[in-house]
Amino acid sequence: MLIVGELINTSRKEVAEAVKAMDDDLIRDIAKKQHEAGAHYIDINCGAEVDDEFAKMKWLVSLVQESTGAPVCIDSPNPAVIEAALQSGISGQPMINSITAERQRFEALLPVVLKYGAKIVALCIDDGGLPRDMETRVCTAKHLINDLTGAGIPENDIYIDPLIMPISTDQQVGVQVLDTIRRIREEFPSVHLISGLSNISYGLPCRKVLNRTFLIQTMTAGMDAYILNPLDRRMMGFLYSSQALLGEDLYCAQYLKAYRRGIYD
Amino acid sequence: MLIVGELINTSRKEVAEAVKAMDDDLIRDIAKKQHEAGAHYIDINCGAEVDDEFAKMKWLVSLVQESTGAPVCIDSPNPAVIEAALQSGISGQPMINSITAERQRFEALLPVVLKYGAKIVALCIDDGGLPRDMETRVCTAKHLINDLTGAGIPENDIYIDPLIMPISTDQQVGVQVLDTIRRIREEFPSVHLISGLSNISYGLPCRKVLNRTFLIQTMTAGMDAYILNPLDRRMMGFLYSSQALLGEDLYCAQYLKAYRRGIYD
Repeated sequence: MLIVGELINTSRKEVAEAVKAMDDDLIRDIAKKQHEAGAHYIDINCGAEVDDEFAKMKWLVSLVQESTGAPVCIDSPNPAVIEAALQSGISGQPMINSITAERQRFEALLPVVLKYGAKIVALCIDDGGLPRDMETRVCTAKHLINDLTGAGIPENDIYIDPLIMPISTDQQVGVQVLDTIRRIREEFPSVHLISGLSNISYGLPCRKVLNRTFLIQTMTAGMDAYILNPLDRRMMGFLYSSQALLGEDLYCAQYLKAYRRGIYD
Repeated sequence: MLIVGELINTSRKEVAEAVKAMDDDLIRDIAKKQHEAGAHYIDINCGAEVDDEFAKMKWLVSLVQESTGAPVCIDSPNPAVIEAALQSGISGQPMINSITAERQRFEALLPVVLKYGAKIVALCIDDGGLPRDMETRVCTAKHLINDLTGAGIPENDIYIDPLIMPISTDQQVGVQVLDTIRRIREEFPSVHLISGLSNISYGLPCRKVLNRTFLIQTMTAGMDAYILNPLDRRMMGFLYSSQALLGEDLYCAQYLKAYRRGIYD
């Protein structure tokens, strides 16, 4: 299981203000808390800083690395920003969020992924746009896996995101995502599956209950990486309980550790 | 989804006392509350009344039927007790909990199931004892399905219980149960899968979290019936959220109704 902490993102007001003001302390604090709560990678997205994304990204990367020692996940659609961030000095294997099967984006980002030996999040989007059903998800995922491995990227560094969309607009999207996970897991056992969860509940009340439920459902189908808020204790609690029941937590050690840390209070 | 309310069971102290004292009000109250909370069947188990199981079972059956109008699930290992309960007058299609593949128990109970056209819970136990792994579960389930349908019981009336055992004593039992569900679901699409959930968490802290997690995991694998406490609001909340995300709740209507009833407070 790989957890990417999602909180350093300028779409969040608190972070947007801290990034604008270059507030070292707040960023350091969010980074540390996520790492301590179980995030293996810290995602960094400063897309709201349109005029200054290069400088802000470099500043954030060095701040996060220095305060946590954890590797970073560079989150930008702009290959030039990603490359600049990676050039500025990276410790550990970086992660890039994200490539797609859109021809132009794929070709621009591929050399950067290869140059820095990064883990790569690959979204099931192609030049036809967002996936409409399970078949288009699986088809785009296979194209991505073939093109990435063909270029020399190991399966183990590929994280396919099947693209979760709101259940409120399409009743079948949950099942489509679960079936996509099962199909990819079966055909490419070394490839990983990753996603953010919150899209699934958009437009419905009690979104957290739906997000937690979909965490467990996608884990059961074979998803093994998440971009989430590791400070959401209930969510992390269900991640550990789910892991234990899937036989992926020897002697339920992580579950018991989480319990002793008071996560289930 | 079929919910069997489990609370009228003399293994629970409050119920044991009420049954001993033949306290109509308390039994009526528990029956009604379960029915209102979403139980389709009300399980009745008075196994603790060793000397008087026949009379107590008849009394309970008539009390539960009269106060709820819901069908009952007769829960006893003793075919004579089950038959006596059914003879006493049953409204709707009864459910019997449970038959096994143990030769003697199977042969004694089969005629009763046939005579009353009951739904039947069939446990994956044979004369070799409890199942050791996924293969013995699937093998016993297939024997049961073949023998029951061969005798004329429709697949749609069969509820296979894969037997959930504690994850604390065997790390792989969760995965074995999930794989058993998937195998039976694939091979016998009209046969149902049922279980109680609480065994999975025996011996571990925060059992409710594990039970809720395993509810969602087993639903994702294809289980479609549960013997549970419908007054556990969190459990029922996850049942509705899970159902909605699996595309089994048109327009998320049940989820939204549960929300409006305040189940997610």
